[in-house]
Amino acid sequence: MQLGLIGLGKMGFNMRERLRAGGHQVVGYDPRPEVTDVPSLAALAEALPSPRTVWVMVPSGAVTRSTIADLAEVLDPGDLVIDGGNSRYTEDAPHAKMLGDKGISFIDAGVSGGVWGLTEGYGLMIGGGDEDVARAMPIFDTLRPAGEKADGFVHAGPVGAGHFTKMVHNGVEYALMTAYAEGYEMLAAEDLVRDPQAVYQAWTNGTVVRSWLQQLLAKALKEDPGLENLTGYTEDSGEGRWTVEEAIRLRVPVPGIAASLFARFLSRQEDSPTMKAVAALRNQFGGHAVQRISESG
Amino acid sequence: MQLGLIGLGKMGFNMRERLRAGGHQVVGYDPRPEVTDVPSLAALAEALPSPRTVWVMVPSGAVTRSTIADLAEVLDPGDLVIDGGNSRYTEDAPHAKMLGDKGISFIDAGVSGGVWGLTEGYGLMIGGGDEDVARAMPIFDTLRPAGEKADGFVHAGPVGAGHFTKMVHNGVEYALMTAYAEGYEMLAAEDLVRDPQAVYQAWTNGTVVRSWLQQLLAKALKEDPGLENLTGYTEDSGEGRWTVEEAIRLRVPVPGIAASLFARFLSRQEDSPTMKAVAALRNQFGGHAVQRISESG
Amino acid sequence: MQLGLIGLGKMGFNMRERLRAGGHQVVGYDPRPEVTDVPSLAALAEALPSPRTVWVMVPSGAVTRSTIADLAEVLDPGDLVIDGGNSRYTEDAPHAKMLGDKGISFIDAGVSGGVWGLTEGYGLMIGGGDEDVARAMPIFDTLRPAGEKADGFVHAGPVGAGHFTKMVHNGVEYALMTAYAEGYEMLAAEDLVRDPQAVYQAWTNGTVVRSWLQQLLAKALKEDPGLENLTGYTEDSGEGRWTVEEAIRLRVPVPGIAASLFARFLSRQEDSPTMKAVAALRNQFGGHAVQRISESG
Amino acid sequence: MQLGLIGLGKMGFNMRERLRAGGHQVVGYDPRPEVTDVPSLAALAEALPSPRTVWVMVPSGAVTRSTIADLAEVLDPGDLVIDGGNSRYTEDAPHAKMLGDKGISFIDAGVSGGVWGLTEGYGLMIGGGDEDVARAMPIFDTLRPAGEKADGFVHAGPVGAGHFTKMVHNGVEYALMTAYAEGYEMLAAEDLVRDPQAVYQAWTNGTVVRSWLQQLLAKALKEDPGLENLTGYTEDSGEGRWTVEEAIRLRVPVPGIAASLFARFLSRQEDSPTMKAVAALRNQFGGHAVQRISESG
Repeated sequence: MQLGLIGLGKMGFNMRERLRAGGHQVVGYDPRPEVTDVPSLAALAEALPSPRTVWVMVPSGAVTRSTIADLAEVLDPGDLVIDGGNSRYTEDAPHAKMLGDKGISFIDAGVSGGVWGLTEGYGLMIGGGDEDVARAMPIFDTLRPAGEKADGFVHAGPVGAGHFTKMVHNGVEYALMTAYAEGYEMLAAEDLVRDPQAVYQAWTNGTVVRSWLQQLLAKALKEDPGLENLTGYTEDSGEGRWTVEEAIRLRVPVPGIAASLFARFLSRQEDSPTMKAVAALRNQFGGHAVQRISESG
Repeated sequence: MQLGLIGLGKMGFNMRERLRAGGHQVVGYDPRPEVTDVPSLAALAEALPSPRTVWVMVPSGAVTRSTIADLAEVLDPGDLVIDGGNSRYTEDAPHAKMLGDKGISFIDAGVSGGVWGLTEGYGLMIGGGDEDVARAMPIFDTLRPAGEKADGFVHAGPVGAGHFTKMVHNGVEYALMTAYAEGYEMLAAEDLVRDPQAVYQAWTNGTVVRSWLQQLLAKALKEDPGLENLTGYTEDSGEGRWTVEEAIRLRVPVPGIAASLFARFLSRQEDSPTMKAVAALRNQFGGHAVQRISESG
Repeated sequence: MQLGLIGLGKMGFNMRERLRAGGHQVVGYDPRPEVTDVPSLAALAEALPSPRTVWVMVPSGAVTRSTIADLAEVLDPGDLVIDGGNSRYTEDAPHAKMLGDKGISFIDAGVSGGVWGLTEGYGLMIGGGDEDVARAMPIFDTLRPAGEKADGFVHAGPVGAGHFTKMVHNGVEYALMTAYAEGYEMLAAEDLVRDPQAVYQAWTNGTVVRSWLQQLLAKALKEDPGLENLTGYTEDSGEGRWTVEEAIRLRVPVPGIAASLFARFLSRQEDSPTMKAVAALRNQFGGHAVQRISESG
Repeated sequence: MQLGLIGLGKMGFNMRERLRAGGHQVVGYDPRPEVTDVPSLAALAEALPSPRTVWVMVPSGAVTRSTIADLAEVLDPGDLVIDGGNSRYTEDAPHAKMLGDKGISFIDAGVSGGVWGLTEGYGLMIGGGDEDVARAMPIFDTLRPAGEKADGFVHAGPVGAGHFTKMVHNGVEYALMTAYAEGYEMLAAEDLVRDPQAVYQAWTNGTVVRSWLQQLLAKALKEDPGLENLTGYTEDSGEGRWTVEEAIRLRVPVPGIAASLFARFLSRQEDSPTMKAVAALRNQFGGHAVQRISESG
């Protein structure tokens, strides 16, 4: 089918490739002339037959909001907009309302797979109405991995359910990464273990802990044993924060995910104010030695 | 090759199957007459040609200790004992010493895979001397999964390294399970999400969080949507506790693994003394309502 | 001075007592005829000389919002409203704006001390403009504990700073309570320790851990050794949740406070969905025994 | 009464002062000639009338073990040894046995109060037999704070109960310090709050969170606003690690105490191997930017 695709960055660019390889006609738009197919959103709208389907794949937050607002201007009643970015699910209902006021339908799509999706397919988590989802199904069927449909695609519920599900996916992902990373640190700390990389490699088959992330850590350790070329400084992209916030709203205890999130915050601090206060306290009551700035290495 | 195998429980029984299917001659011993091949350890020793290789697959702790002590009596210099159970790695050096004093070699083997190992193979993490490991390699090669050797087998280091690595494997496993379980609870708590099972099914292909454990949770949810037929009461088998204890020894922060362990402790309490104390405190300073025993459901 | 006081519940009633004992003329309003001094907010406004000072001490959220909206109608330019309830600090700026549009000033006051404040005084954390705070100072000076002013009163910053500070106070309080409660559970679990109550009593003087909360736990344990008359079911009043949410906004790692919050969530669940999922997983891969509903006590 | 006191460091030196001020005759021994009263343990034994009471106040572990072994040589049946150091409680039974074999009694004493104990008294947690404890009571009565005996002294149980109780005390202390420190970090991170020190000062009277540690943090912040003269590098002295280990043995969930312990471990790492592994993983699957060593500040 024909599809407009807005945003040709790391994810969108690859998705255009995969969709075209799957026989779809994709009109891509991106502000960067070297990758775009059309010069403007208006041109994108013109290039597509009615009713149009337009996939938005731009940074979440302000850029997604303004893109959807712009689309509301250039599209027509009966068209369909799919937000495939990492928007917080609470943004979906307002977007559906804004577009719905003009007769335009809205679907939210959580997309997982990273740079590997081009070849392996993207895990898809969809929120929206049944008819809208059915209409976009040819696109979903090409983007999702080969194999059983239910193994890589879910119509999770009404508008919002796709991004909520993707948010939880990423929260779980945070905790999985921390789990593997804690195991790595223990293996690296114990002299008996000759080579943590070999252990992670050996876990890729037959073990209970085997997984795709686990394979990636084996691969990363092969490329850089000791991980000496990088620091622990780690950004968080939003979903981890949102997951803990939503868990609080839902009164769901998430100690594993929260620990992962806090570890990322900590990784970005030069020194921890919390631990400075603990050090100050120990000094007060015990006369314990503290490390003064002038002494630290 | 020929192998003595002591302990024909859930794991040992299947291993005998897999080894025999792989062309090895296995003499199994178990106190239960309906499964054993020989009536005693002495008979097992007699049935094997020298130098013997004997795999111990019995419950960790007292049973493993007494089995190895008994083997020290019936085996001869030049023989080899492999402890494939879930022993704490700190037991390995004493076992190696006790056997070594009689000229008997010792290998510790961490074995992962559960009931699925029979058909898929067992992930193996080995500790011991190079010559001893080489000698037992035909056994390892049959037990491990098909495919690249390095993907399901690691000679992790000297005696102790196998069980240490397996212990960390299980600590990581605890945290992975908690990660998926927290995600499940969030999906189940949010009305937008129609069916958490469908989401877990859809994560099995293409997503960043896909894994063997993740597939198992999808399977469990398919068999019992809502998990209504079981309680959250969860045992811990030792490795999780040991992992946190060793992390403390090594000064490695493991908030994710520790959270998983504490959640298991809590799952086995009828009511939490910690939270009773918190409730008592709130009542003291705030006159906050507390739930008295007579009121609780 | 003269003060209007809206809300004569557990906190407000005691505050009226303390203020009157301190020589102030308090006109209290409450919908319950048996405690109110005037029949309506309008009557309260009439009963006070201009410029008026009115303290709002009602449940946070909807009730506080509607009370302040009602006050905006019956008060006059130059009057001052103090919100002394446990409002989220993000509500303060909108309230200040709503009142400010009519020339009415606004102060947010965090009040700590619970039922003990009547006799011991209330710890006060104030947000607002310097002139407004100066104007209400006679009230603050009576409510705060005797002794050094700086030890029980702080003008923390502009509007919002009072409630933000009180929120952090309560977040810290959550973690302190958990700390003492974890210690109690350990003492109660260890056979060597004859009487945890005696230990908590002995910690009230000379130790590093002594505190007011610690004394209260000793008192609670004296009244109910073993805490057998209450359950661990524990509400959270909002501030704990808000503290973790604000910590996420500020990228501050708060593992201690978050653990306390999650423990409260868990205390209110009949069974943990997270742990049911963990139990289901263990059953899948290991054939581990699980507790089915029919077996549990 | 007469007392031998071994170890005149930060704690022992002050205790000798307090005991002498209380009318006791103290013979102190320390390897440092400038503080010792006698040149050797043998001389200390000679200087005391039978039956002797000797208080050991030396570093826990090897030094305490060798000191007690030496005392077993120079003391006589009927004498009494008190270990007032921070020994792990599991050391007490062996010490009691070693001394008991020679007819010498043993008491373990947990002592809290730090450098402030000299003037304020020391919180005492005692393990031992009733007769032995009664015999040393004049010493305990001088060391403990003035006021109600039960508020600063507890005979917690048989040998081991004193050090176990002190260990839990210190575990609780870790969590309390973290609680206050997390609150400090939040106050310092929020622009609305003008001066976190003033807040901590204002919490010292009337609030629910007031405590001795809380006062100390207010004092530390007054001396060094912003805590700019020290780093977060924080040692742990053993009790925190032991508390978590014992909690695991007792199957008591202690997320608050464990979080405090792990935060200390982390404070001593130049970079977190766990977070390096997380960063490596993100780079693998998402092409996310990582901070390479060459880029970090």
